[in-house]
Amino acid sequence: MSSSPLLNDLIDALRCLPGVGAKTAQRMAFHVLERDRAGAKKLADRLATAVERIGNCSRCRTFSEDPICALCANPQRDAQLLCVVETPVDQLAVEQATGYRGRYFVLLGRLSPLDGMGPKELGLDLLAARLAENEVHELIVATNPTVEGEATAHLLTQIARQANVRATRLAHGVPLGGELEFIDRGTLAHAFAGRQLLSD
Amino acid sequence: MSSSPLLNDLIDALRCLPGVGAKTAQRMAFHVLERDRAGAKKLADRLATAVERIGNCSRCRTFSEDPICALCANPQRDAQLLCVVETPVDQLAVEQATGYRGRYFVLLGRLSPLDGMGPKELGLDLLAARLAENEVHELIVATNPTVEGEATAHLLTQIARQANVRATRLAHGVPLGGELEFIDRGTLAHAFAGRQLLSD
Repeated sequence: MSSSPLLNDLIDALRCLPGVGAKTAQRMAFHVLERDRAGAKKLADRLATAVERIGNCSRCRTFSEDPICALCANPQRDAQLLCVVETPVDQLAVEQATGYRGRYFVLLGRLSPLDGMGPKELGLDLLAARLAENEVHELIVATNPTVEGEATAHLLTQIARQANVRATRLAHGVPLGGELEFIDRGTLAHAFAGRQLLSD
Repeated sequence: MSSSPLLNDLIDALRCLPGVGAKTAQRMAFHVLERDRAGAKKLADRLATAVERIGNCSRCRTFSEDPICALCANPQRDAQLLCVVETPVDQLAVEQATGYRGRYFVLLGRLSPLDGMGPKELGLDLLAARLAENEVHELIVATNPTVEGEATAHLLTQIARQANVRATRLAHGVPLGGELEFIDRGTLAHAFAGRQLLSD
């Protein structure tokens, strides 16, 4: 503990950041105080503003400071395609990696009744209403390939079927650059069973 | 880039923290917005308070929100011993690792004329005035064993000599748990030359 209570408070508060333990928090606090007070001031302001003003888009539930996010408001995006992801980070990952030009729906979680995450918490009523608008032609299910993610995907498929919308799922298999030797059995079994015909 | 400008601003500002690149900043921003808004609010407040109110102790120059830090103000600490360190983090390291009960003097840098760090910037006039009070009997030089740190140590020794104060330096050598095979040549040569007599 340093001899400054305010400094100790700061070190303690920095630990709310993911991956930041006692030692890293200490290094961060001393670093900004010694070398970058302007940056720290800016960070404090932006953090306060973000927490206060960033809510969720009323249409796709992703983070947004406006009632409708920029992506939902963009008429250039294809309204016939709707990609369902678990979190805003997943949305960003799809957005950065693919050339996808459709819309998104963010669950803000995955089906996990024990943690109190049911269909209502995932906004599935909102999703069903969206599909009932008959604008969406394909629901792309991009939940994570975990147990909860698969359960969520199953439920999403049912919702799509009820609305007569085609549901698709991201392909699973050996990742590019992966080596068979080091891939977990589940993934390898999945990739083997789902093998595809080579074209000549 | 996410579609929320405020979120992008936050991600950008988080990069002022040491060791935080684009990807980590993104993870941190999404994490606090999704799961710990209360913690983020607290962090914003404490960061702003720390930047605004933490200055330097007028006696030892370490970080302090008061004109004289708690350690300098503590009458239990031995005023005859003065340990000189480069930064407040170094002070904390000595404080946490050793049973040292004396006082400190923090240079807030090291001698490095090219970076504009001269005797004045290191507060050496303040240090000389402190030694002239004739209270200090031993000046413990705990600068880092780098080129600049050694140059700083040399200068500190001269100041101590002028004030007729005994100057000591932290011992250098093989670190505990270190293996000779993996220790750099400089350290090994230093440890070899400074070998000590084994008592029976």
